[in-house]
Order: sequence, then C-alpha cells, then structure tokens
Amino acid sequence: MDEQMISKVVESVLGNISVESAGQKADCTCHRMEMTLALAKRLIEKVEQKASQMGLAVVIAVSDQSGRVVAVHCMDGAYTASYDIAVNKTFTSAGLKMSTADLAKLAQPGQPLYGIDRTNGGKIVIFGGGETLRVDEKIIGAIGVSGGTAEQDTMLAAYGKDILKEVVLCQ
Amino acid sequence: MDEQMISKVVESVLGNISVESAGQKADCTCHRMEMTLALAKRLIEKVEQKASQMGLAVVIAVSDQSGRVVAVHCMDGAYTASYDIAVNKTFTSAGLKMSTADLAKLAQPGQPLYGIDRTNGGKIVIFGGGETLRVDEKIIGAIGVSGGTAEQDTMLAAYGKDILKEVVLCQ
Amino acid sequence: MDEQMISKVVESVLGNISVESAGQKADCTCHRMEMTLALAKRLIEKVEQKASQMGLAVVIAVSDQSGRVVAVHCMDGAYTASYDIAVNKTFTSAGLKMSTADLAKLAQPGQPLYGIDRTNGGKIVIFGGGETLRVDEKIIGAIGVSGGTAEQDTMLAAYGKDILKEVVLCQ
Amino acid sequence: MDEQMISKVVESVLGNISVESAGQKADCTCHRMEMTLALAKRLIEKVEQKASQMGLAVVIAVSDQSGRVVAVHCMDGAYTASYDIAVNKTFTSAGLKMSTADLAKLAQPGQPLYGIDRTNGGKIVIFGGGETLRVDEKIIGAIGVSGGTAEQDTMLAAYGKDILKEVVLCQ
Repeated sequence: MDEQMISKVVESVLGNISVESAGQKADCTCHRMEMTLALAKRLIEKVEQKASQMGLAVVIAVSDQSGRVVAVHCMDGAYTASYDIAVNKTFTSAGLKMSTADLAKLAQPGQPLYGIDRTNGGKIVIFGGGETLRVDEKIIGAIGVSGGTAEQDTMLAAYGKDILKEVVLCQ
Repeated sequence: MDEQMISKVVESVLGNISVESAGQKADCTCHRMEMTLALAKRLIEKVEQKASQMGLAVVIAVSDQSGRVVAVHCMDGAYTASYDIAVNKTFTSAGLKMSTADLAKLAQPGQPLYGIDRTNGGKIVIFGGGETLRVDEKIIGAIGVSGGTAEQDTMLAAYGKDILKEVVLCQ
Repeated sequence: MDEQMISKVVESVLGNISVESAGQKADCTCHRMEMTLALAKRLIEKVEQKASQMGLAVVIAVSDQSGRVVAVHCMDGAYTASYDIAVNKTFTSAGLKMSTADLAKLAQPGQPLYGIDRTNGGKIVIFGGGETLRVDEKIIGAIGVSGGTAEQDTMLAAYGKDILKEVVLCQ
Repeated sequence: MDEQMISKVVESVLGNISVESAGQKADCTCHRMEMTLALAKRLIEKVEQKASQMGLAVVIAVSDQSGRVVAVHCMDGAYTASYDIAVNKTFTSAGLKMSTADLAKLAQPGQPLYGIDRTNGGKIVIFGGGETLRVDEKIIGAIGVSGGTAEQDTMLAAYGKDILKEVVLCQ
C-alpha cells in the first residue's frame, strides 16, 4: 500500500462530508423553520395588543437566530431609550441562547458571568425582557421588549415566546 | 342598543387601529400631525409592496421628526448591512431636513458639506434612499430604504414620501 | 493493515472532524448547505498555501452568510492591522452580497455609494479582498483577505471564492 | 508500514502543517519561543476536541503575547455572542498577564480592580475562560474560550494552557 493509496483512503474518510452535501441538495424541500418578516410582524402585533391591554407603550424587536433584527415597532409614547434596549435584548437572547431574565441572575456581582454586559460593545442586556424563540426546541430567533418595568417586559417577552407556536400555526 | 352595539361604540372611542385612525383623522385638523406607529407601518407596507413588485428585498425604516426610529422592517433576504443603512438614512433626512440624495451632492469632495458623514458618530448617510416625510410642508418624520441600488433606494424612499398623503387620508 | 484500519488511524489524526461529519450526515439531509468550521478551515488553508507560494503573510477570515465570523487565521508576520480589515471584508461582502472590489468602484467620490464606508460603524471596507462564497448561486458566506497589496488581496480572495466548489466536493 | 508511519504520511497529505512545524522545532532552541499560527491552530484543535467530548460548541481564540489575535475558530452552533467574548478574553489575559478567572476575583465590587472592565473600550472580560500561555514561565500568548458555562470555559482554557507544553513538544 503506497502513499497514493493512503491518500485515497484519507479522501474517502473525508468524503463523509461530500455525501452529506449531496444529501443536502437533494432534500432541500424539508428545510428548517426560519424567522421571516411576516412571522416577526405577526408576533410583534400579538405582543403589542397585550401591551395595550396592560396600558403600556413598549418597543418590541424580533431578530433571527443570529441576532440580526428582522422588525422593530415602537408604540406611540414609548421611552426613547427603549429602542436600543429592545434591540439589544434580542441580540442578547439570540447571542447567548437564553432569556435576559436568566442572564440577569448569572451577571450579578459575585456570580459566574458578572461583567458580561461589557463584553460585546454594549449589546448585552442583563435584565428581563429578552427571550429566545424556538420551534421544536430549535432557536429560530429572539424577541426583545422594553418600556414597562423589568417585570412587565419579562412578562411580555415571555408571552411572545409562548404564543410563537400559535402564530406559526396560523400562518 | 344591545351589548354588541355598545362594544362597537366603545371600540370606536378606544380604537383598535383602523377605527382609532378614523378618530385621529377627525382630530387632525385641530392639532399637529405626528408620526405614529400605525402610520409608519402603513407607509412601510406600501413601500414593501412596491419593492416586491420590483423584485427587491429591502430594509425600510421610518422615524419621527427628531430622527427617532418608529418602525423598521427587513424584508426576507435583504442585505444584512442594510439595517444600519436604512436606519441611518432616516436619521440623516430627519436630522438635516433633506433627502440623502440631495445631501450626496453637497457632500462630495470640494462641495460645501464634504466630510459631514463623519460628524455624527457614523449616522449620516450621503447617498440616496432617505427622504423627509411632510404633511402640509411640515416635517413629521423621515423614511430610509436600503437594499437595491442607490437609484432604486432613492426611488423607493421618494415613493414613500409621495404616497404619505394618501396613507394619511386613508387612515 | 487494511483500508478500514487506515481509516481509523486517519480519523484519529484528524480528530473529531469525521465523527462530527457522521453526526451531521444523519441530520443534514434536510438542511441547506451552510458554512461550517470544517469548511472554513479547509478553505482558509487553501488560501494560506497560495499566499505562501506568493511569498505573502496575510490574514484570512471566513464568515457565514450573515457576516458572522466562523474562522480567522493570521499568518506569521502579517500586518497587525490586517485582522480588522480581513474580518470587516467578510462582513462587507456577506452584508452587501458583493465583492469589496466591486464595491470599491461604487464607493468612489461622485459614484452612487460614495460614503457607504461610514454607514455601518466602521465595518464596511471599500477596497478589494472580500468575496462572497456561493454554492449553486446561493451565498453561504464570505471570505476576507488582507496583508498584500489590494490587488494581491483581491486575487487571493477570488482564489478562495473559485476554489470553494472544489473544497466542498473534496469534503 | 505501521500506524506511526501512516500518521506521518497522512500529515504530509494534509498539508504543510507538520513540515512547517518540524522546521520550527529545529529553530526553537536558538531563539525566543513565539506564538505562531501553526502552534495556535494545533492548540485550538486540542481544545476543540475536548469541547466536543464535553458536548459543547465553543469559540476558541489564541493571541500572541501582546493580545493580538492569531487564530479564532467558532465551532458549529456556538453562541453568536461568544466570538467577541473569546477574543476579548485573550486580550484580557495577554494584556494583564493573568487568567480572567483570577481577574474576576479582583474586579468584584469592593475589590481592588473593581471597574477595570470599563477601562479598555469594552475589551476586558472579568469572568473565567481566558488564560495566559507560557513556555518556561515566559508568556507567549493567551487563549480565550467562550460557549459553555463560566466554569466550563475556565476548564477548557486551563486545559489549553496545560496542554501547551505537549503541543509545543509535538511540533
């Protein structure tokens, strides 16, 4: 068995991936669920309605799974500062795959991630109102809400998270 | 007058968006017209439809008269970089009370505002796609579009500017 | 020693790549082609070899389709400044779906996108060395090269773009 | 032809890494050990393998002794936010010549370096996962890991630190 043959064997070991690639092309019809503008808008509207019922004016942002914003709506009268906060909450939840309420606990002085709010150019938020959006356990995006108390924002974002399934089915 | 009818009257007083809009319309004569989320969304949707007809996927942002974003929509498949550009175009047009296409002429080397794109922390855009939004000559906000060529963006933002009157009247 | 044994040795030399692939293989049938670390590394290595042959020390960055960096390698002796430049070139090409050499033409004074290098927080590069990476016309990521002349960087990034097909097939 | 020989052939098939490394090894006795791309890649691969065994997808960055990044690899599925965090952990450990886990203790409220995470433009990380890389007590670089819990990141970075000797000898 010479070097050339070994090279071929090596290539065939590496070749698992190419088989995989071929498979990817063939079966593209069953591609995974992704965040779309239509989905983001419907989800935001649901949260807007809930906020209205609570007498709140909030900013609601929805991002894709990599934290890129897909849509942001600022309800009339919302805090000016809430735009950045809502957008950054989506970045945080998408970027760290957890709610900002959970991150809040880990980021307190003395806790394991204390200081994480300074690691990503001011884009990490360490209080409630950001949630991941999952379909069949897979993260497809995140939602960020800002404008109420941290508790209200957390509740509204969690509402968005919970209602996603219904919104997806309605599409 | 039964409960259902009373509900309708109450709704028209409290307003969900379309009914609320009717209420706003009635008021508009007696107080200053302002950018609202409802108006921003309707305007964005019109521009989205136009972009779709042109086969484009763009990001559309609408801000109030001080350049604060009211709503942003990223059409599926839009450039990742277009989010910042669209948002910054609204900031530029609202902040300087002119279209970014007009600013482009003034910001060339040798022209009066050469260098203005470096004055506001990277938020000034000096190519087409940002327009002021005016009602009765008064600026109520701005629109920024990014995702096509500079020419297409300019056309789409100008379309948004032109159609504003119709959108306001339809409310 | 037969082929199977050699395969095992190869796997142990390569480490977890093949095992990973096996796992991916099962799932991948329903996913579209995406940038992976394995693919990014192989592509970077090809460009590294080409740069070495040219007597250059460059920084090579590969990102996914949304401009998120997947891998960066700084060849020994590369310019310190090239790290940011290479990373930003991938962001630019992924974010605007074009080569930075093409963008260069549009971003000159008097041209349609003059000023675009100030719109995204300093992440847009308007000279050659960034290219989109496409499989079957679909963008799966981008490559950025910095360290030679603009011409050399452009050539190396284009080499990476062109060789992608071969790298994908070889996997 | 035994396993050892095959490994050598495989290494030569896989490219210039081992040849490069062999060359470096010969030189190492007569000049100051420095971080190289070849060394960074081998170290990152070891940590990648360990992370895979732990079922984690992390970002691993290695910098030279001045905190300049030499290589970064983002494992498939790693947190989006982890890229900045891993890179900043290497900057922190190289820049302050200590692990970020040790810095964490000094940076708590009431402690001597409280506030240090705000001194360097957002590049100082004050939780575990960054370690200095030393050869004969001399710092030649740093490693940053992000993607697991702070504890897992700390463990993986420490693993990289500990295995450096072996990786250097293997070259």
